[in-house]
Parts: sequence; structure tokens; C-alpha cells
Amino acid sequence: MSLLAAMLNGEFVNVAAAVLHIQDRGFQYGDGVFETMRLQGGRIRLLDDHWQRLNEGCVRLRLPAPDRDQWRADLSRLIHGHEDGVVKFVLTRGLSERGYRPIEAPATHVWQLGSVPPPRNEPGIVLRWCATRLSRNPLLAGIKHCNRLEQVIAQSEWNDAAIAEGLMLDTEGELVSGTMSNVFLLIEGIWVTPDLRYSGVAGVMRRAVLGLMAVLGMQCESRAVHPEEVSQASEAFVCNAVRGIQPVVALAEQQWPIGAQTLSLMNEWSRTE
Amino acid sequence: MSLLAAMLNGEFVNVAAAVLHIQDRGFQYGDGVFETMRLQGGRIRLLDDHWQRLNEGCVRLRLPAPDRDQWRADLSRLIHGHEDGVVKFVLTRGLSERGYRPIEAPATHVWQLGSVPPPRNEPGIVLRWCATRLSRNPLLAGIKHCNRLEQVIAQSEWNDAAIAEGLMLDTEGELVSGTMSNVFLLIEGIWVTPDLRYSGVAGVMRRAVLGLMAVLGMQCESRAVHPEEVSQASEAFVCNAVRGIQPVVALAEQQWPIGAQTLSLMNEWSRTE
Repeated sequence: MSLLAAMLNGEFVNVAAAVLHIQDRGFQYGDGVFETMRLQGGRIRLLDDHWQRLNEGCVRLRLPAPDRDQWRADLSRLIHGHEDGVVKFVLTRGLSERGYRPIEAPATHVWQLGSVPPPRNEPGIVLRWCATRLSRNPLLAGIKHCNRLEQVIAQSEWNDAAIAEGLMLDTEGELVSGTMSNVFLLIEGIWVTPDLRYSGVAGVMRRAVLGLMAVLGMQCESRAVHPEEVSQASEAFVCNAVRGIQPVVALAEQQWPIGAQTLSLMNEWSRTE
Repeated sequence: MSLLAAMLNGEFVNVAAAVLHIQDRGFQYGDGVFETMRLQGGRIRLLDDHWQRLNEGCVRLRLPAPDRDQWRADLSRLIHGHEDGVVKFVLTRGLSERGYRPIEAPATHVWQLGSVPPPRNEPGIVLRWCATRLSRNPLLAGIKHCNRLEQVIAQSEWNDAAIAEGLMLDTEGELVSGTMSNVFLLIEGIWVTPDLRYSGVAGVMRRAVLGLMAVLGMQCESRAVHPEEVSQASEAFVCNAVRGIQPVVALAEQQWPIGAQTLSLMNEWSRTE
């Protein structure tokens, strides 16, 4: 996203001059968490879910959680006068000298407002398998922390703009997610999605989808998923907070039409806008 | 370390004004590698080993490696006029907009010179066991990348200044290393150190120790090590580039004298100064 506005620790800054000291622990160790949110029609979609995951990350990493009212106020100031965009919030453990040990320091809060990525030409997207594996660690699973080398390396595997996303396995060979999305497969009439107990980010859109499925009376299991199961799927989609639900039409040799249940979910999601 | 000097992309900057843009990928994703080096008597110890590991990290993470001559020249300028200190070099993938995908950008090079940490009062140090586990991923094992949340959380486990270091297991229960050091155990006359095939940082001091052991005719095995083996050790030490070899005198209920072989290694190491 090109940056439209930025705010550091509660103060608007010129986007070109939005800088942090090299001793910020976000820079030193990726010692922080972030959220990427969709601004649509002047409001943030799934705001409460973003807030909740942010706080779960703070608890897990022993980071100081933001004050809720202040956080909401900063966000309101950031998006004031904007209808659509992508908002990124980063919280780091603040400044410290060299050394892993966390010291008591004010957290760094960075807000960024950017433009919405251009929509894709086709409604359905093409995926690939990534060779890069995700490590397993329940400590870090589910939360959106700033240690993202595995996703970076995975995305460096391909350069073909026709491929929108890559699916990743963990080091034990279980399916986890896309590099920047969660994945759902319809297998014998039941939706299946990886349970993320060891790896991956528990997307706020994933959570919203589980809610939509309940509303629409679709069954869904969150469980360990093996990559061979993809071949049994009659529908597949990926989802994230920025792009919502994206039907998958191809992965390696496999092809799918855009399925009826996926369309129902997309319709239900746009109905709630 | 308190900062004495800083250099960004080849230019000295005031340490208070050593800042990077919030879109630097080091800040966004921990997308980089670093080296922490000991300046002693006006020269960097183990410089070639640091250079080699840095380059291994760049290859593994598909980062643009620095030009060797330029890198050496920057380092010389940084330490000019200083006798002792700790030098930290960070290389990140540079600036990019939001999104994991690496784009072609000039890497960010950050040099920092800081003071040497105060020596410990006692020659031997006390360790503890950390509850925080290290994830396994051969992609990231061995190199000194900037995704260090596991080490940060591990160090947040204790606050007792009498405990100098914590030992970490991986998620499968194998011994890996200290939070900021490698570990060696003398078991039935043979030195043993974890092989780091799945996790951990392959320390330049660890490598130097393996060389010292060869010189002194000590046998050493780099292999999978289980934590119960610690109870069989007759000597133990940890090592890193900043503090060299540190004999371990206690870990949980276990106590050791500073062993004869450990002392020989320490003497040999100081002899090479």
C-alpha cells in the first residue's frame, strides 16, 4: 500500500518522516505484533476481532497492551475523512539497548493508513504450493507477531503475477495456511480448515467465516489437515481481512469452479457490509 | 550496550538520530540478519567467521550480501580510534510497502558501536532451564536472523541477576543452546555440543571453541543432545562472541567446579588475543 497517513505514539507524522530509532526492538528482533485492517465505507471491518487478537498477542508475548479508549481514539483520528483503505497497526516493545532481555519501556505504537490494493481481474484465484515450511511453536501460533521470515521467504519463491497465493505446510507436513491468508476446503459436504495449534495466524476473517458458516447452517471442522486432502475438495477458498473471501479455481493440476457454497459465503459477507 | 557511534548505509549519524523508516522490512517483519562482534585491543575478534555467517544468512534468506571491501571499510571507519567495544551490524531487506513479498530494494546496513558489558564478579556463572521452547526449522537454523521472539520471551522468564543465562530446549525436547550462547558439556571425557540442525544460532565463538579443542587434542561431538545428559557432565561452559568462554558452576540442583579442561580452553583462547 502506498502510505496516506502515519501516526507514531499518538502524533501524526509526515509519511516520509515516519521513522523509529534503530534500537527499537521491532527493528532489532521483530519484537512486536501487528494488525492489518480493512477500512470500508468509513468504518473498520471486524474491529473487535482485531482488537481481541492484538490483545491475545500482547498477553502471549508479555507486551504491554494498549489502552482501549486511546487506541480507538488514535484509530478514529487516523481514518477521519477517509472512506476506504488498509490500516496497519504495529506495537513493539519499545526501545532498549542490545540484548534480548525485555526492559520496562513504553511500547511503540505505529499507525499507517494506505490505499486498498487493486481488485483482481478474475473472481477466482490461482494458488501454488510453497516449498518453504512453517516451524511449529504453540507459543507463537495464532497470533500476528512480527517474526515473519518464513512468510517472506515463501513469497520469494514465485514471481508470476497470475499466482495470487501460496499454500504452506509446517515442518511435519501438515497444511497450515496461505502465506497471507487462511484456507478452507469443502470435503464431502463439510468445510475443513487447519486448526493452527502449532503454526499460522488465526485470521480475523477466518473467524468471521466460521461465523458466516454457522449462520448459513454449513458444517465446519477446525482440525489437522493433510495436504493430500486438497485433492478431495469440491470447493476451496482463502480469506484475509484485506481481501475478504477469495475462491480458489486452480492449484497445481487441480481445478475448481467457483462453488455454490463459496458464493453463498461471499454474498453473506457482502450483505453484512 | 550504550551506543558510542552509529552508521547508516555508510554514513555516520548522531546516535540519538539513528533512525529508520517504519517501512523498513527489519521493522515490519524482522526481515534481516545481524552480527554482534567483540572489539578488543583495536581489532575485531573472529572477523572472518562473522563475515562468513553473515553471508550464509544472506544466502539462506535470499538477502543481498554486502560488498566485502565496502563492509570492511565501513567497519574500519566505525571502530577507528576505539580499543574495546561491542560492534553490532544489522542488514535488512530495505524498504518496501506492506506485504511479505520481497521487492528489489537496496538493503539497509546499520552499524553500531557500544561499550563492553561489565565483567561478572565470579569466573563461573549460574544457569537456569527456560520453559520457552525453540521451534524447529532447518531454513532458519544456524543463522543469526532478526526473528528473535523466542529468545526474548525466554529471557523474560527470570529477573534474578545472579542467573546469567538460561538453557533452551526445542519443541521436541532436545537441548539447543542458551538464549544468547552455545553450550558445551564434558561427558565421559568427550565434549558434546548440540548440532543445531533444527534450531539455534551457530555461534562464531562455538566454532572457535571447536578449533581450540582440536588444537588441544580434546575430542568433541556435535550431535543431538538430550537435557538429561547435563546430569552426566563433569564440566560445562557456555560461549559467545562478546563474553568468550564462561564456565558454568550451577544449573538447577547441579553444581560443578570450574573444570581443568574448561580452564585450558579459556587460557588457550586468551593466548590467541
